[in-house]
This record gives sequence, structure tokens and C-alpha cells, in this order.
Amino acid sequence: MTTQTLQTTSFLTDFRSMSTFGATPGGGVDRQAATSADGQTRNWFRGLVEGHGFEVRYDQVGNQFALLELVPGAPYIAIGSHLDSQPLGGRFDGAYGVLAGAHAAIRVASLLTSEPQFNIAVINWFNEEGCRFKPSMMGSSVFTGKIPAEQVLATTDPSGTSVREALEAIGTIGDFSLDVAAYLEIHIEQGRSLEDDGLTIGLVESTWGANKYEFVVHGEQAHTGATLIADRQDALLGASALVVAAREVADDYSTDEHMVITSCGEFNVFPNSPVVVASRVNLLVDVRSTDAAVLAAADAELHRRVSLIEQRFNVRISQGASHIWASKAYDAAGLALAASCASALGLPHGVVRTLAGHDSTNMKDIVPTIMLFVPSAEGISHNEREFTSDADMLAGVDLLTEVVSRVVAGEFVQP
Amino acid sequence: MTTQTLQTTSFLTDFRSMSTFGATPGGGVDRQAATSADGQTRNWFRGLVEGHGFEVRYDQVGNQFALLELVPGAPYIAIGSHLDSQPLGGRFDGAYGVLAGAHAAIRVASLLTSEPQFNIAVINWFNEEGCRFKPSMMGSSVFTGKIPAEQVLATTDPSGTSVREALEAIGTIGDFSLDVAAYLEIHIEQGRSLEDDGLTIGLVESTWGANKYEFVVHGEQAHTGATLIADRQDALLGASALVVAAREVADDYSTDEHMVITSCGEFNVFPNSPVVVASRVNLLVDVRSTDAAVLAAADAELHRRVSLIEQRFNVRISQGASHIWASKAYDAAGLALAASCASALGLPHGVVRTLAGHDSTNMKDIVPTIMLFVPSAEGISHNEREFTSDADMLAGVDLLTEVVSRVVAGEFVQP
Repeated sequence: MTTQTLQTTSFLTDFRSMSTFGATPGGGVDRQAATSADGQTRNWFRGLVEGHGFEVRYDQVGNQFALLELVPGAPYIAIGSHLDSQPLGGRFDGAYGVLAGAHAAIRVASLLTSEPQFNIAVINWFNEEGCRFKPSMMGSSVFTGKIPAEQVLATTDPSGTSVREALEAIGTIGDFSLDVAAYLEIHIEQGRSLEDDGLTIGLVESTWGANKYEFVVHGEQAHTGATLIADRQDALLGASALVVAAREVADDYSTDEHMVITSCGEFNVFPNSPVVVASRVNLLVDVRSTDAAVLAAADAELHRRVSLIEQRFNVRISQGASHIWASKAYDAAGLALAASCASALGLPHGVVRTLAGHDSTNMKDIVPTIMLFVPSAEGISHNEREFTSDADMLAGVDLLTEVVSRVVAGEFVQP
Repeated sequence: MTTQTLQTTSFLTDFRSMSTFGATPGGGVDRQAATSADGQTRNWFRGLVEGHGFEVRYDQVGNQFALLELVPGAPYIAIGSHLDSQPLGGRFDGAYGVLAGAHAAIRVASLLTSEPQFNIAVINWFNEEGCRFKPSMMGSSVFTGKIPAEQVLATTDPSGTSVREALEAIGTIGDFSLDVAAYLEIHIEQGRSLEDDGLTIGLVESTWGANKYEFVVHGEQAHTGATLIADRQDALLGASALVVAAREVADDYSTDEHMVITSCGEFNVFPNSPVVVASRVNLLVDVRSTDAAVLAAADAELHRRVSLIEQRFNVRISQGASHIWASKAYDAAGLALAASCASALGLPHGVVRTLAGHDSTNMKDIVPTIMLFVPSAEGISHNEREFTSDADMLAGVDLLTEVVSRVVAGEFVQP
């Protein structure tokens, strides 16, 4: 058995082992942030990398750092993604990137051909998904200074458990901190453009712009039978109209050149009883586009529709927290380096944009960052049926290994 | 102090005591079926009526019977309503009718002027509201043979607790059964017609027809950011469109003569995570009208819209359980008797229809039934701000006493 075959077998074996944590009957995983399933996955990952000589540390918000020292005292190149998942999520989203990072680091360390300039850290970011605790990309947001750690630690899940309590319960919290010189991430595409174009590798050029809003529709609790239509202030009706309006905005504002995507992923009705007109609905709505001007126009139209819905249905709609991510480019030199590596390995590749947020969306604002994609079958994601082939996963690990090797050798940033 | 003043004071004192069970900060009550708050209210009611010589029994689904024997061996006239409430419900809905029944029975027993032909039972029906356990009017549905007891006992709440377990936990379940000769109920109107017309008493002529449906909208779980609009099968979008369509059906099919009322009171989204396109929404939709033909037309249009929504938004909508209540008249002789009593007491009264379901909706199908209303301020109901004045409550007790007195004397049905 050649070394290459051994490594190939090892990655797929490790991937299958990892996928048993929080496994669901439908072939996916449920590893919401800081649940026991997330904790078990973190402990398994710790054991795996410690077996390869890494040292594992945690920072104050539970980000997990697997450190591989190649040059004592040198700065670190970080490779990251996340092991947490959506409820009934797929087994590739995030987890693939963390494991690929570990295997790339192990291979680079074992096959060093030139003098390394950096050490390597593989990071498992806390709570990228943002389902149990909001917002998403929580760990990397704290790491990059966008959200204070204290705010995150005090954030509670629907049952009232705080992030601090949940992290302490699974024992993955500490006080470590790390200086990072550059950041690399590989992830499944979660879209279908690579598959449609017959490509194995996506080189991510930029993020889409995304505006995310928490809306609260306020009505007046009433009897569903006895209350006349004219007297109703039906929060569920207002919120439903807002969900439909958001889709209409996407349809109306998308152009051939720039898509607009709108969604509502969370929608909570109060008191949600069969014979009660709802008094309140809390919902999250987001608007995304590749183009800042198109996004601004769609966003303005969404807000105009909010006012119309308030008038038409006799409800009041307030806007709570909002999170705005402007469309931003990844490092151009990194994109060129990754393209050069893909060409060297003979991997079909192309430039893509990411519609989804990733931890690299945060990291690229503080250090030079390279973001890579492998294909998602039919673009299905956040779904138990999410799938990336073994061949595509292995191609991604090969590419990441090549990129890490060159970055560690000083081809991307200087120590 | 005269006897009348003593009784007046006693009813209002008892009403205020009763309203402390499950009391909410906003002035309402939360006494969902077979919760500890419901159990405490039932125990309080048992103590109250036992102090007046009643004997209290429970049937197999927790209906509570307070028996006052006037003529050993004679059949029973039942007066009923319910002590359970909506979450954050008002303190009048149901509870007023049970307490008014007890006070009317006590007064009739103490002031008997002619030979009684019947005994009196005051019934606190189990789970009229149907919020914790579905469907509503559960206890009276079993009593009248519309739903098997075993089905009800096996019904679970969202946490998996069955009706049987919940009733055993509060200790109000038994094996009693009762033959009833006639049924009387007094309730708050939960609409505004009495207030608008300046009336104190509503004599309920008929129920509205009501079709209640459980719909399930099936989509496909996906990523809210990365999944293209064209690829989405968004269950939340389909369900939202159905809620909006239901309101449009009410607007389009109401006539000057016959109103159509549509509602959605319960709406549950799966998996309901911020960045996941929903795979499924379960929702309850009901359509009501005073006229059978108008109801049928509105219902057909609602179902036509369901098909359109399936096509437009690429979802599948299945229909689960449905509950159909045809518009039905109350006993004409009972209506005349109640009108005669109201006139005798000088109470301004008029004939009304009920948009809401009541336990009398079930009981009228098996025995001669009289249904009475007192006003609801601004028609507000299923709301902590639900309100009926002391004067209106007392007028209702006076009228109910007069009606019970005549029914017990044999003026409505024969023993």
C-alpha cells in the first residue's frame, strides 16, 4: 500500500467515523452547537489530532484549536470550518472542512519539501450554524472582534441555557488565544454551480451581500371564531403576508446578471393555539444579492412592503436586530495561488461566489484568506440528503494539502 | 342584608376567588386542560359546591359533575360550561357559565315554589378549549358519543403526555355516567353584537357552520442562502400563502346577509432554524359561515386555492383530520321559554347566533338545549382583556335561575 493510498483510506475512514456522532436515521447528523452530540464530536476530533501530535486548546467562546508546531515561535496559518450542524443537517457541511484541514496539515507536516515558515492551526469554530444560539458564525465573530465575548456567553437558547453554561457542560471552553497570519477554508458548495459546470473545485472570489432582519409582527389575541374579520389584528396573517412578500421581492428584483435571494427560516407564533388569533409572530427574513445596488433596491422594496402589510392587515411590525454583510472580495493573490495549485493537480476548477455565510466571511476581514469549494450533489444542503462524492472530497483534500504546503512555505503571506 | 343581596355578593366573591387560579399578570388566566392550574380550579369548585350539599363525581374523560338531588330517582337537568382556558385567556370564558350554573342551582333549591320534577347537575366539561389537547369540546364530544373515550384518553399534548396521564396526575377521573333530560348553558358572547345593540341577554338561535382542517404543507429542507429560488420547495412559503388565501376567501365570500370567517390559529414550522428552508408546516385552518351554501362555496374556493399554491410554490399540501359542524338550530321551545323568562325579569334581550363552538353545540344534538349569552366588552375574547361587567354577569345568573326554576318544574321537558 502506497502512502497516498493509506492517506486516502484514512481520510474516508475518519470521515465515516466522524459522521456517526449525532447521526440521524435519514443519513444526516444533528449536532447543534454545544449539545452533547457536538461535545462528543469535539472530543473525537481532539483524540484524532492528538494522535497525530497536535495540541488542542479552547478559547473563551469554545473555539477549538488543534495546533501543529513546525517552527517553534513562528506565526500560525489557520485552516478552519465547523463541526456543529443544523437539526437534521447533512454530514458534510462544515465537518468536511475541519477534517480536510487536519488531514492536509498532517500530510504537509509529513511531506515537507522546503523549510516551513509557519506553524499550522486547525480550527473548529463554535456555532457556525446559529440554530440553537443566534446569530450564526458566532465563534469566528468573537475571534474577529465583531461581537463581544461576554454578549455571546450570555446568549441563551430557547430553553434558557446560556452559551457559557452549555460550553461548560460539554467541557470545551478555555482562555486560549492565537495570532493568525492567514486563513484557509474548504467547504461544500451548498449550491449547484460546480456540478452544473462539471467542475471539481470552486475558487471563491467574493461573498454575496446579505441583510438579515428579525421582525416582530404585533397583533391582538382574539377568538378565531367569534371575532369579526373587521375587528382582527391577526399577527399570523401579517407575518404570512411578509413571507409571501419576501419571495415576491426576490422574483421582482432578480436580473439576468444579479440574483436576489430572500428567505424566512424561523417563524414563531404566539400563543399558537387552535382557536386563538395570534398576538405576535417573531420571524427572521434575509435578503441576499451579488450586487450591492440590487440588494439595496430589493431591501428598500421589502421595507416598503412591510408598511403596506401593516396598513392592509391592521398589525404593527417592528424590526429587531439586523445583521448586514456587504458583498466582499476574497484576497486576489490567494485566488491566484489556489488556481495555480488546482492547475498543478489537474483539477477542473472555476471562480464562484458564495451565497451562504462561512467563518471565512469573518476571517477575510482581518487576515488574507483563501476559500475553496467542492461540489454538492444537486446543490442540496442543510438537509440529511446533502451529498459530496468520495472522489470530490479527496480532490478537495489534495488541493488543500497543496495550498497549505505553499502557504506554509511563504508563498501567500510573509511571517 | 336581604337574601338577594347576600346571593349577589356571594356570586361576585366566588367569581373573584375562582379567577385567582392560574391568574396571569395581564388580568387573565392560564388554565389549560388538566394542568395543575386546571386541577386546582376543579378542586376549588368541588369544595365550593360540596359546601352547598352537592355530590361531585367524574366520568372516564374527566368531566366533572356536581349533583344536587331534589327528587330522589328523578332524571337530571344539566347546566354546564368549562373551567379550562386558553393560554393567556380571559377569566370569563367558560368559568362564568360553570359558576353561574352552580349559583342558579343553589338558588333554585333554596327558593323552590313548586314541586320539582328533576334533579340538577352542574357540569364542568373537560377541555373545551382544545389548546393543550386537540380537538376542542373534547369532554362533551365523548359524553355525546361523537368521539370514543379511548381515542381521547390516548391523545397526547406536544410534550407526549396523554389525556389519561394528565387527568390521573390531577386526580379528576372516574367512571361516573349520567342520564340528562335537558341541557342549559350560559356563556359570554365573545362577539360584540349584544353590546352594539344595547342588549343584556342573547338567546342563541343557532350555531354557525364550521369546517376545521388540519393541513400539512410538505417542502424540502434546504439552505436559505445557498439554494436558488428556482430549486426551492419552501413549506413555510406555501403555508404562509395559505394563511393569506384563507383571509382573501373570507373577504371575497362574505355577503351583507351572511358573513364568512376564516382563521388560522396554530402554525408549526419544521425544522424552524434561521438558515433552513422549512421542510414542513402543520397548520389549522377553519372556515365558518351562518349559511350552509355560502360556507360550501367558500370552502370550495379555499380548496381551489390550496391547489394553486401547490403549483405556484412547488409544495405538496395534504389534508389531515377535519371537523365539520353544520349550522344547526337550538330548540325552538327552549328559545321561547328563555325569552319569556328574560321578559319576566325585564332584561333587554335578543336572538343571536354563535360563531364560536360551545359544549352546548354537542349537547343540543342529544337533548333539548337552551343556550344563553351575556355581553363581552368590545367582543374581546381569548385574551386577558376579555371583560363582562358585574351587572351583566348578575343579570345572567338571575336569568339562568329563572330558566332553571321553570325547567326543573317541568315547563321545558317532561321527566
